Amino acid sequence: MKLADIYAHFQEDIFTIERELEEAVQARHDILRKASVHLLKAGGKRIRPVFVLLAGKFGTYDVNVLKHIAVPLELIHMASLVHDDVIDDADLRRGKKTIKSQWDNRIAMYTGDYMFAKAVQTATYFDDPNIHQIISNAINEMCLGEVEQIRDQYNPNQHLRIYFRRIKRKTALLIAVSCQLGALAAKADPAIVQKLYYFGYYVGMSFQITDDVLDFVGTEEQLGKPAGSDLLQGNVTLPALYALHHDMHAKRLIEQVLADRGNNSVHMEEVIAAIVSSGGIDYALSISDLYLKKAMRMLDHLPDDEPKQFLQEIANYIGRRKF
Amino acid sequence: MKLADIYAHFQEDIFTIERELEEAVQARHDILRKASVHLLKAGGKRIRPVFVLLAGKFGTYDVNVLKHIAVPLELIHMASLVHDDVIDDADLRRGKKTIKSQWDNRIAMYTGDYMFAKAVQTATYFDDPNIHQIISNAINEMCLGEVEQIRDQYNPNQHLRIYFRRIKRKTALLIAVSCQLGALAAKADPAIVQKLYYFGYYVGMSFQITDDVLDFVGTEEQLGKPAGSDLLQGNVTLPALYALHHDMHAKRLIEQVLADRGNNSVHMEEVIAAIVSSGGIDYALSISDLYLKKAMRMLDHLPDDEPKQFLQEIANYIGRRKF
Repeated sequence: MKLADIYAHFQEDIFTIERELEEAVQARHDILRKASVHLLKAGGKRIRPVFVLLAGKFGTYDVNVLKHIAVPLELIHMASLVHDDVIDDADLRRGKKTIKSQWDNRIAMYTGDYMFAKAVQTATYFDDPNIHQIISNAINEMCLGEVEQIRDQYNPNQHLRIYFRRIKRKTALLIAVSCQLGALAAKADPAIVQKLYYFGYYVGMSFQITDDVLDFVGTEEQLGKPAGSDLLQGNVTLPALYALHHDMHAKRLIEQVLADRGNNSVHMEEVIAAIVSSGGIDYALSISDLYLKKAMRMLDHLPDDEPKQFLQEIANYIGRRKF
Repeated sequence: MKLADIYAHFQEDIFTIERELEEAVQARHDILRKASVHLLKAGGKRIRPVFVLLAGKFGTYDVNVLKHIAVPLELIHMASLVHDDVIDDADLRRGKKTIKSQWDNRIAMYTGDYMFAKAVQTATYFDDPNIHQIISNAINEMCLGEVEQIRDQYNPNQHLRIYFRRIKRKTALLIAVSCQLGALAAKADPAIVQKLYYFGYYVGMSFQITDDVLDFVGTEEQLGKPAGSDLLQGNVTLPALYALHHDMHAKRLIEQVLADRGNNSVHMEEVIAAIVSSGGIDYALSISDLYLKKAMRMLDHLPDDEPKQFLQEIANYIGRRKF
């Protein structure tokens, strides 16, 4: 089974969710609607909705119930992207704050707020307060992740634990919750709900670590931005952390990049080469693999039919992906 | 009965809510906690919690139930203040974006996000999806109000309708919802819940219009900022709108201020004098009074005892306040 098969299988239901997403952002307000629709059209793999649908297969599958989980989770994801961009945008203009850039940022901030609120509103379809608790907790944790990232930005002295907690909050938790709530909304067996939560969590960790590796080893064409962008922006990820702890030469270079705070005096190619030769890339990939294996193990005792094969395939895709 | 009597009457319960608010923002994260606690300590009249408590008196009053409404609504109010500040802060530094100012803004944005999520989370105490619907709708409307304010900033050609809708979304709705949900959580009679909703709405409109008047006629000492700050920041409020529509001299001056976009070439004293002599201040005060009378009329058929007297007193306070 291939990833394309999964999307083909769920095509109609993904389309339903897409329509619901469009409807959710049809604010009566022109600017907000344009900003939201723009974001929506930018696409993305809709990975969270897909996990919701897949998890729903372990209970009573009904897209008209599941969409009330899939839409909020995708909206939360999009809102967090908008809020991430608020500052990046201002950054690009390097201190030249035009009225227009100021406008954009404010609109971006309130578009994000609006999407958060729409997410919560969509989920009010469910009476179960447990579902609301899980969703609002996920938003909270994501905020904590963002604030931790800001706190630890440009800091070369981070324990690995800090990195893992950050990517859990920023990425893995929302995928875990997609699986958990998809199963919960479909009234799957509580033991299965829990297994799917951990499956999503481990897959999410693996996914983010691979992402952090690709930021170093992808080409500018694949990434849509120069390799090493994370480090340049002060985001110290697993390959760099490993190199910092294990290779004096790489350590000096990375510390230099972080001290420069964007005004780089060292060539990024050199830094990346040093991280590669430190073993940081291989190490990160092995950890990503480890998480993937943990994810697979969660499926061990689940019924051995199509829904499980879907989950295995999507996990494999995440393990295989090269950009 | 005086306002102080109301605060005295509810002293213990306001204290309970204050403690809950402090607990709600006790994020495990240091920066977030400091930012939130700082905001909390800055105080404010806790007017929304007071309305929740007052409305709760029309049903089965229990602060341990009502606090789960009062805390979210105050958190939403505070979150919206934080997000308002995000850009003001950057503005003050006029294009000089230091790392520190960038940090502050990002932290402020995520502190706001965190508070929104905490608000939603606190309200999950209630099983009634109606309550969650009302809360998320209020956040949505506030976002719309913010975006409309941005859209209409520096625009002298606004219909009065636009102004009233904006202050409804930015201020009146959250006070209306405080009354509505306080009564709802106390299981008051549905007819009373509705009357209290409108009471809050009218009081909120009156409150904001008075606020907008005071921004012109208050002293710098009373306001904590120079008189005319709203107009200077491009926020066209009722007195200015009236003047724009009724007085050619005032119109020219106001248009000049708006065209200048903060780099003022006219003296604000002159602009304010023109607005006063246009009748804009008197007009706005009369509209504020009108809303207050509408609010009072909502109380006509409510039982004529202490809770009603409290509401009358708080409405009177809002009518009387001079800064």
